[in-house]
Formats: sequence, structure tokens, C-alpha cells
Amino acid sequence: MKLHAGKFAEIRRLVAEGTLDTGDPDLRDFIQEQHPADIGAFLSDLTQEAAWQLLGLLPLPVRAAVFGYLSPTAQAEIARKTRRGELADIVSEMNADERADLFNKLDQRQQQALLPALSQAEREDIRRLAGHEENTAGAIMTSEYATLRPGLTVRQAFERLRLQAPDKETIYRAYVVDDHRHLLGSVRLQELILADPEQPVEDLMDRNTLAVQVTDSNEYVARMIRRYDVLALPVVDADHRIVGIVTHDDALDVLERAATEDFQKVGTVVPMEESLRDAGIGLLYRKRIPWLVVLVFGNLLSGAGIAYYEDTIASYVALVFFLPLLIASGGNAGSQSATLMVRSLATGDVVLRDWSRMLGREVLIAVLLGLTMALAISGIGLYRGGLEIAQVVALTMVLVVMIGSTIGMSLPFLLSRVGLDPATASAPLITSIADAAGVFIYFAIATAVLFPVAGPGG
Amino acid sequence: MKLHAGKFAEIRRLVAEGTLDTGDPDLRDFIQEQHPADIGAFLSDLTQEAAWQLLGLLPLPVRAAVFGYLSPTAQAEIARKTRRGELADIVSEMNADERADLFNKLDQRQQQALLPALSQAEREDIRRLAGHEENTAGAIMTSEYATLRPGLTVRQAFERLRLQAPDKETIYRAYVVDDHRHLLGSVRLQELILADPEQPVEDLMDRNTLAVQVTDSNEYVARMIRRYDVLALPVVDADHRIVGIVTHDDALDVLERAATEDFQKVGTVVPMEESLRDAGIGLLYRKRIPWLVVLVFGNLLSGAGIAYYEDTIASYVALVFFLPLLIASGGNAGSQSATLMVRSLATGDVVLRDWSRMLGREVLIAVLLGLTMALAISGIGLYRGGLEIAQVVALTMVLVVMIGSTIGMSLPFLLSRVGLDPATASAPLITSIADAAGVFIYFAIATAVLFPVAGPGG
Repeated sequence: MKLHAGKFAEIRRLVAEGTLDTGDPDLRDFIQEQHPADIGAFLSDLTQEAAWQLLGLLPLPVRAAVFGYLSPTAQAEIARKTRRGELADIVSEMNADERADLFNKLDQRQQQALLPALSQAEREDIRRLAGHEENTAGAIMTSEYATLRPGLTVRQAFERLRLQAPDKETIYRAYVVDDHRHLLGSVRLQELILADPEQPVEDLMDRNTLAVQVTDSNEYVARMIRRYDVLALPVVDADHRIVGIVTHDDALDVLERAATEDFQKVGTVVPMEESLRDAGIGLLYRKRIPWLVVLVFGNLLSGAGIAYYEDTIASYVALVFFLPLLIASGGNAGSQSATLMVRSLATGDVVLRDWSRMLGREVLIAVLLGLTMALAISGIGLYRGGLEIAQVVALTMVLVVMIGSTIGMSLPFLLSRVGLDPATASAPLITSIADAAGVFIYFAIATAVLFPVAGPGG
Repeated sequence: MKLHAGKFAEIRRLVAEGTLDTGDPDLRDFIQEQHPADIGAFLSDLTQEAAWQLLGLLPLPVRAAVFGYLSPTAQAEIARKTRRGELADIVSEMNADERADLFNKLDQRQQQALLPALSQAEREDIRRLAGHEENTAGAIMTSEYATLRPGLTVRQAFERLRLQAPDKETIYRAYVVDDHRHLLGSVRLQELILADPEQPVEDLMDRNTLAVQVTDSNEYVARMIRRYDVLALPVVDADHRIVGIVTHDDALDVLERAATEDFQKVGTVVPMEESLRDAGIGLLYRKRIPWLVVLVFGNLLSGAGIAYYEDTIASYVALVFFLPLLIASGGNAGSQSATLMVRSLATGDVVLRDWSRMLGREVLIAVLLGLTMALAISGIGLYRGGLEIAQVVALTMVLVVMIGSTIGMSLPFLLSRVGLDPATASAPLITSIADAAGVFIYFAIATAVLFPVAGPGG
């Protein structure tokens, strides 16, 4: 299967010109040959009407698969404009977890309109899956898993799986449950294939099956799937009854999403689910302005520091030459520490109790970094300001790098400790704090060195 | 299965005290009950000797699994101190891809010592897998996949898979190949289970099987696995012969690793594979100092700007109060744009040809952001400096935010365009550029407004 970018571009052009002939058998053949993920990506760029027209060229199961690849917003918008019966056909064919997501995106009136058009089993399934809080295991799990009773033989188990297979997302691991759906263990299809057909499932099953709670965070579940290299994890309720599974592809999506959110946070953007490419001006403005305004007022502190030392500056205007450089250096070293720490806390590489040990190391590294940077700049300090200014600049450099690094490293820990998101310790926030600290350190040292006894002129 | 943090902590204490009794049957039972991933994480914190002692308590297949969960560095270090026969036993039991990774970590002498202790098939397998360039599909693929001939019936295919199953990483999709291992298609185990036992595999197989080239980047392969929600992708050579598969768990690792590297880059840290928790001072120093020194010299430009306008500053020292705030604002807005763009380019949400369209939107957003921030600060400008200074500050704010945003948004595109890594457009780099631009803009406007005709005093 290849990506036919050229052919897709041609269709896009025809749609834009309003000359697409949906009756064209070549078009139909081309579309039907593409992977649902590729069709979904292509349709996301078109108008809803055009997307809906092209969807109509596909057989129902493919149409449902493609629909599942559209963004939840696009799904809901198309759903709004579709006749109830047609929508119900698609919804019935969708994966159980995607169906529940779509249901959650519809408003109450639409939900009430859709439900009667579905089968009893589908309605119950949606109710079971759609009621969970966002960002929990419950919200990403699917009900399409295979179950077996412990008393079955391997031969009987195979027969059961044959019956369950067509509408289960994965039967590669079957979950063994008692009469009340309590999770007893699990057995891999691979093991069933190799086993004696008359052996009971009970003897074969892994009783130590990992499971997560329905209320666990989706990121926790994804990290478990990554840690244990499993295809899926069963989700249980408070009584250890199985209620769903989370599959490896959900884990991938959750971790990619979580990384994107952390990028947004360290970039001082309020996390947004929307694609950056398609986000509107209003949305981006709302996501970006809060931190920018907070930081404007944060940076007033640096201005206040400068105002406080106005006399020193007036006497030695040369000092201002080194000001941007010195305060930026503290912020830069701090940004490094903060960014490293935010990511390591997110992946679980670093945990809260590592803080004190890492702080010691950070101070040592910061001294080395500060000394190197002081060395790099002292020649210019000497050339532009003479020995005294060079000393002031070098000493300030070591101190601001130390302070910046320590704050940058500790703030994510601190935030995490008090239950806030460590990713709030963004580079610009650390830079603002380090800037203000840098101004005071710089001019305090300058005043002390340049006016040793009586202040300016002394 | 539960994480027994308490018991693990106790063992760690006993190891530290040197009083661990490895003959204790309770210890043996406890260790053997844990998941290999958990044992691996626990052993990574211990000394090599202690780790090796505890590994000895495990049956060989578990020992190999645990060994596979250690970091490649820890594996190589333990391998160095282990007798050749013992090492060969473990290596034989390891997954083919992990085995090849370990082999690549050993020096040539160790490699030559290990090879004769392995079987002919294992040696060939290692040679086939270990020779690929880093960060390619070849470097992460495994040779443990199941193949079928097109002429087999479903019944015969099952018999073949039964024979192949014990040492294949996944048999949930079998690849159909001709006599020369050319990839013809694939068939899912689920489909085989449902099919008529006498049907030929040929009629059942999916001829449109997605495949990647052995030289494709590992991140590309991982994104394909994510895009198409597949368990594994076959890897083919230039002649379309199958040479391996990449599995979903590798995709997870590759994408997590890629996100971590991008975090390091936007934090101006040279990417490092090592865990931040365990990284040494020397390593962290080397990874952090290059950009810090580059930025020190970059920030000299801001200093030069200030020196150039020394007369203006000397006449209006009040201007310096607003300097940190104004230049920081350009950098902050630019950091937002750059961080959003770096991530979107990495995930494929945004592609190169989106640039011109997004630039227009960015300018509009920047004007809105700049106006809001100018409004926020103009009261203080009025209060501290009077009407003229307030006008200078407000006008500068709008301009620096526009320039910072435009640079922050465009630089990742530009870098990507010329084949460099967009993540090089880090927040501190954008901040440095925006700082320098901000200094010149601020004082140029101030000079023009405050000394309208003849310069200072005019």
C-alpha cells in the first residue's frame, strides 16, 4: 500500500473547484484501495459536505473505520448534519471505545436522538463506556475483549474464541473470569495453540495477570503498558470485576498526547487538544495570552531592581552592557535544569525522593558551568570595563548560574510535591525569576565592589 | 501482581549492609514472583555484584528476560564480568533484537569471545541484526516473526505456526513469502482461526501489507505503527525481501525517546541517552555547556545594542526600568511559537508546506497578543515615565511581540527546510535573538520619540 499524495491532491483540487464527480468509477476504486487512516487524514482537510460525499463511496465497515480516524470534533460536526438512521449504521460499526468517545462529544439532544436507533446491546455498551471521567483508564478502555471460564478445556476455549473473534478488538489474550466477572487470570492465544486440547484453561492461565483500576489515570495505564511490554491491560472495578481493556495503540496515543501537553506547558501555552495546524486565531490567543501577561508583571520585578540601583547605573553606564547577558545566563542554565527535570518526572525516570541527592549534584554542575561561562566573558569584561568590572561580571555570572540552576531544578519538584503539575516550571517562568534575581545580584555586587565604602562617589 | 516496594527496599538495605543471605528461600520465592520488568528496574539501582547475585536466583529464561530490562550500559558491564559460558546461556535466551543491541554494546574482543559459545543459528541471527545503522528500522527490528508459504492450507498454516510459536515474538500476524523471502502479503491469526481449514493461505492473505525499508528512520517506523494502529510492521530490503519486523512496544520506546530528545533540545541540552537520575556530573556538564557558551556570546549583541544607545540611556535612565520587561516579552511570545511548532513538526501535525498559511495567522495573533500586553503595561509606563515613555513602551511591546513570534514560528520551519533539526529552535535561542532585536527596537523608538529632531538635547 502506498500513499498516493498526487491523486489525493488532485481530488482536493476538484473538490475546491466544485467539479468532483463522485460517480466516477476510478475515484471510487482509488478511494476504496486506501487505508482508512489515510482516507481519514485526507478527509480532515476537506469541507464537511465533501468529506461526507466521499465517505458515501465506501462500504459501511470501511466508512465506520474512516469515521473513527477523524478528529472527535470533526466526527461530532458531521454527526450533527447526518440523518439519524445513517449515523446509527456507522456508529454500530465503530470500535466500542471510539463510539463512546463520539457519544461523549454529542450534545444531549443528539444523544437522545441517536440512542433509539441503536440495538439494546450497543446502547448498554455506550452507557457503560461513556460514563467515565476524562483522562482515566475508564475513558479510554474498550469493551471488545474476549473472556473464558476457568473450567473450559483448550478445545472448548478455541470454540468460544471463534465465536467471539469477529467483534473483539483483540483476542490474543483472553481473560478468565468467574460467574460474576471477577478477573481470575488470563491466557495468551499463543499458549492455547501450543497446549494439549483437553487441558483445562484453569491449569494454563496466568494467575498473576496485571490489571489497572477503572479510575487510574490514562497516563499511568499507558506507562504500565510500556513498562511491561503488553498488548493490552485489563481494567477492573473496585471489586476486581473486569470492565474493559486498554490496548497498546491507546497507550501510544496517550503518551504522545501527554508529551505534546508537556511541550505546550513548558512553552507557557495552556494545553489544547486541537491540532496546531487547524487551531483558530481566537483559540490560540486564549491559550497564549494568560502566561504572557503574568510574565509581563513578573518582569516588572527586574525593572524595580534596576530602578533601585539607578544611581549605580548612572555612575557606571558601562554596567548596562553586561546586564542582558548576565541575567539571560541564569535563565538559560535554569531552563536547562527545569526542562530536563520536567521530562524526567513525567517519564518516571526521576521520583520525588531523588530531590536531595540531585540538588547536591546540580550545585556542583552549576559551579562548573558558571566558572566556564565567567571565563568565556571575562576577557570582554576586562576590555570594556577594566579589572573591577571584569571581577564583578565574573562573580555575578557564577552566582546567577548557580541560582538559576538550583531554582530550575527544584521548582518542578516543589510543584509536584504540592500536587501541581511540574511542567508549569516553564523556561520563561524560570527565566523571569532568574532575571529578577540576576538584576539584584549584579548591581549589589557592583555597588559593593565599585563604591566600597560610601556609595557612589565614595 | 503488585509492586512490593517495601520488600524491595528491605533487600536494598540488606545489600547495602552486606548482610543479604542469597540462600534464604523467602528471598528466592519473592524474587521469582516479581515481573521481570520490576526486577530489572530494582537491579539497575544495585551494584553489579549484587545484581549478578540476585540474577542467579532466577531460572534461566526469567534471568534472560530480566537481563533484557537492564539498561544497555548495565548489560555490557555485567557481561564484561561474567564467565563466557554463563553469558552465552543468557544471551541464547534473550529476545533476538535485545541480543543484537547487547552485542553492539560489547567491544570487539568481547564479541569474539562470545560468538563461539553460541549456536550457528544464533551467530547468524546476531550478524544479520547487529549490522544496521543506529536509529534505523534495521537497528530496532527483530528476527522473531512467523512466515508462511502462499500454497499452504489454513490447517497446514496452523501446524507451521505451532512449530514456530515458541521462539517467535509475535505470531499474531504471519507474513506470506515466496521461495526467496519476497514479501507477498500477510494474514492475521484471528482470520486463520475463523477460516475454513482447507482454504489456501493465498486466498486469505492481505496483499496490501504495509512494509517499511530497513534503512527508514526508527521514528518514521514508529509513526507508521501509530498511524495505522498495527501490532507490528514488516521490514524489507531493497528487493522487497522480508528481513525483520518492528513491534508495537518498540514504537512506544522510540516515540518516548524521541519526545525526550526534543525536550532536551528545546531545553538547549545536547541529547543524551542516559537516565537523568544516574547521569554523572561530567556527562551533564558536557551536554549543557555548549549552548550556554554560545548563548553568552549571542547575548553580547544585546549588550552592543545598549552600548550603542548609551547617550539615550544616560539622558533617560527611566528607560532602563522597562528594558527587561520588553525584551523578555518578545522572547516569551517567540518561545511559545517555537515550542508549539517544534512539537507539531515532530508529530507530523504540521508539514513544511503549511508555513506561509501559518505565518499569516501568526502575525495576526501576535498583534492581538502585543496589544493586550501593551495595554497591560501602559498604565505603569504612564505612571513611571509620563505620556511619551508610555507611548514608546506600548509601541515597542507590540513590535517585539510580533518580531519574537514571527521568528519563533519561522525558525523551526527554516531549520527543517535546510535539513537541520527544528528542535534546535529552543526557547533560549529564540529569547536571545528576540532580546537583541528588542534592545534595538526599544531604543530606536525611544530616540526617535524623545529626541525628535537633533538627538539627545535637541
